[in-house]
Amino acid sequence: MSTATETETETETLHPISGIYLGTTAAKIRKNGKPDLVIIELAEGTRTAATFTTNQFCAAPVTLAKAHLATQAPRALLINAGNANAGTGEQGMLDAQQTCALVAQELGCSPQQILPFSTGVIGQNLPMEKFAAGVPDACANSAIDGWFAASRAIMTTDIVPKTYSKVVDVDGAQVTLTGMSKGSGMIHPNMATMLGFAATDAKISQECLQQALTDAVTKSFNRITVDGDTSTNDACTLSATGQADMPEITEVSSVAYQQFAAAVLEMMTDLAQKIVRDGEGATKFIAVIVEQAHTTEEALKVAHAVALSPLVKTALFASDPNWGRILAAVGRAGVENLDINALEIYLGEYCIVANGGRAASYTEEQGQEVMQQTDIDIRIVLKRGTVDETVWTCDFSYDYVKINAEYRS
Amino acid sequence: MSTATETETETETLHPISGIYLGTTAAKIRKNGKPDLVIIELAEGTRTAATFTTNQFCAAPVTLAKAHLATQAPRALLINAGNANAGTGEQGMLDAQQTCALVAQELGCSPQQILPFSTGVIGQNLPMEKFAAGVPDACANSAIDGWFAASRAIMTTDIVPKTYSKVVDVDGAQVTLTGMSKGSGMIHPNMATMLGFAATDAKISQECLQQALTDAVTKSFNRITVDGDTSTNDACTLSATGQADMPEITEVSSVAYQQFAAAVLEMMTDLAQKIVRDGEGATKFIAVIVEQAHTTEEALKVAHAVALSPLVKTALFASDPNWGRILAAVGRAGVENLDINALEIYLGEYCIVANGGRAASYTEEQGQEVMQQTDIDIRIVLKRGTVDETVWTCDFSYDYVKINAEYRS
Repeated sequence: MSTATETETETETLHPISGIYLGTTAAKIRKNGKPDLVIIELAEGTRTAATFTTNQFCAAPVTLAKAHLATQAPRALLINAGNANAGTGEQGMLDAQQTCALVAQELGCSPQQILPFSTGVIGQNLPMEKFAAGVPDACANSAIDGWFAASRAIMTTDIVPKTYSKVVDVDGAQVTLTGMSKGSGMIHPNMATMLGFAATDAKISQECLQQALTDAVTKSFNRITVDGDTSTNDACTLSATGQADMPEITEVSSVAYQQFAAAVLEMMTDLAQKIVRDGEGATKFIAVIVEQAHTTEEALKVAHAVALSPLVKTALFASDPNWGRILAAVGRAGVENLDINALEIYLGEYCIVANGGRAASYTEEQGQEVMQQTDIDIRIVLKRGTVDETVWTCDFSYDYVKINAEYRS
Repeated sequence: MSTATETETETETLHPISGIYLGTTAAKIRKNGKPDLVIIELAEGTRTAATFTTNQFCAAPVTLAKAHLATQAPRALLINAGNANAGTGEQGMLDAQQTCALVAQELGCSPQQILPFSTGVIGQNLPMEKFAAGVPDACANSAIDGWFAASRAIMTTDIVPKTYSKVVDVDGAQVTLTGMSKGSGMIHPNMATMLGFAATDAKISQECLQQALTDAVTKSFNRITVDGDTSTNDACTLSATGQADMPEITEVSSVAYQQFAAAVLEMMTDLAQKIVRDGEGATKFIAVIVEQAHTTEEALKVAHAVALSPLVKTALFASDPNWGRILAAVGRAGVENLDINALEIYLGEYCIVANGGRAASYTEEQGQEVMQQTDIDIRIVLKRGTVDETVWTCDFSYDYVKINAEYRS
């Protein structure tokens, strides 16, 4: 079960990005034989910004992608599903280097111009012979309209592919943004995300591009959580080919930058929320909104305490307005000198907690009404300051346990 | 399902403590009609130490018990199951005061000499007329051998009652310790515990008694976690009647204090572990042992990251040696400058992670062998210092979701 449905996504139009070509193949890295290898070719002159996981056991491809990105502008992204190449030690790094060399040979560039990404089971070595056969295959079918096929090939426990595409106005110029993401479990990004790959034809400096990506990821991928587990392989990229007819964006204070950054934030928020809607076993999409906090840190403390509470998440699954569990989660969030008599908690539009206890106006019928919905807002008004933050999560169902108990079998 | 079984507990001998009398009744506070009200009478001269929850939405009885304990030595503990009297605002406090007045009237003491404790559903007012009838009933059947009946009456989603009893030697004197605990979900104590009530006939100063309790709770109840949710009602008490034939313990440096404190720690560890074994839906008992940490704080960060990971817990439920999830949890624990190439992780006796990846000697068969067991050790050797800490937890099963999705129905 999932709050996401196939049809939503398949009917979307995915605008090609001039200068971006995507090739996909089934290299049999994963057991089920579905497509699992993607190469995204980036035209000369493309600038790429990226964010990566903060998990200290980060995968070999993450370490290598960071190193490559620091040396020169990438000419291709190599992505495989089915094997995370994480926890694989020295051999994992040698394998990741070899995969880059395979792609470089096909494309006639240096291995340092390839960024590798892997997702799947942790702790198994990459099947290198499958890469040797798969890389030429993927390159052979490279196409400018390859986004949808690619978005399916990067899936693991995802039920639906997650894509976004829009043409926006940036200070009078037409700019196209298209992206995809994957992720369903081990979702609690921290300064990075699961896998997200986006591209645009915008003409923008490397500094401005990275700034727009970092800011967008902070407010999108870094605000979702399925199970509190930060992956070893999280990464998100944004490549700009510069092929749109426009002046280069070079100043973050410019109107063009502001409009571009807003468009990037909208894309990343959409891609991030699609991951939550497709969260493992998810039946509900929950926004935990914390208002009037003193700092971002305390707002996120409260939001995560609620969003990660197994008791809150199982109550949401059961459509049980057991608001006491929300109250208990707020109380243990670790906010110093919290005035429990001042704060208010809302379920949907209804106030459930005020004056240190159940709101006088609250009725069980109100709670039931909200709990029947698929999209639910939990809003906590701390009355301590002016900072608002939102975290998105899903409920906790039998299927979460089933999916994760049976993942490797 | 539970790793605890009824027979283990029922056959235990619970030694009475001279000066402690327990009365139990079914006051119909909970729906199923089982006993739910306990009054523990403390003989004159008894000293009581206590620790309480740090949840800021703490329940009215917690606030009142703290206030009463600060004024004079308690003469009775009043405990009810079925209703937590938490999130009940001003009325909750008036109700808690009234329950103390009812007991004080029966026992001929002041209401300030009663410590109230409640456990059960959050956010509903106490049914006061049921207390009015139940309190005299409970007092009427007060008995020195009432421990086992009381341990059953304080249960909520617990499957088995949790008790401990032992006669120990304290610097040549015979001292008896008997205690009970309850708790199964919303278990992640922080400077306190769910409910634990223990008594001893030891002769000990108030300061030494509180010290022994605080130290024991830190290393026992504060080292267990079922679901990461800290309750609004956690409390633990230790009452010493002073009726044993011994000199009063007044110095923490004395042999008698050291022996007494060790006995208290053994009791609290046993009662805390019994809560984990009876964790909601638990099928396995897990010790997460962190060794050679630099500080207690970082040891606990790593231990909790592993012990609370839903991915690790579902893999344990499935008996799947998916050690990559343990590695990923360690990597996101937030320990600064963690050297992933130096640390080692063991599953039971087998090294699973070394040199930044899977240990060369590790085989899937070794992992399967350990995973088939009911009691499993996960040991993480950080190689950064000399601090060792252990946290106990359980796995995450379908039944956890079932129990918590259906709790109020």
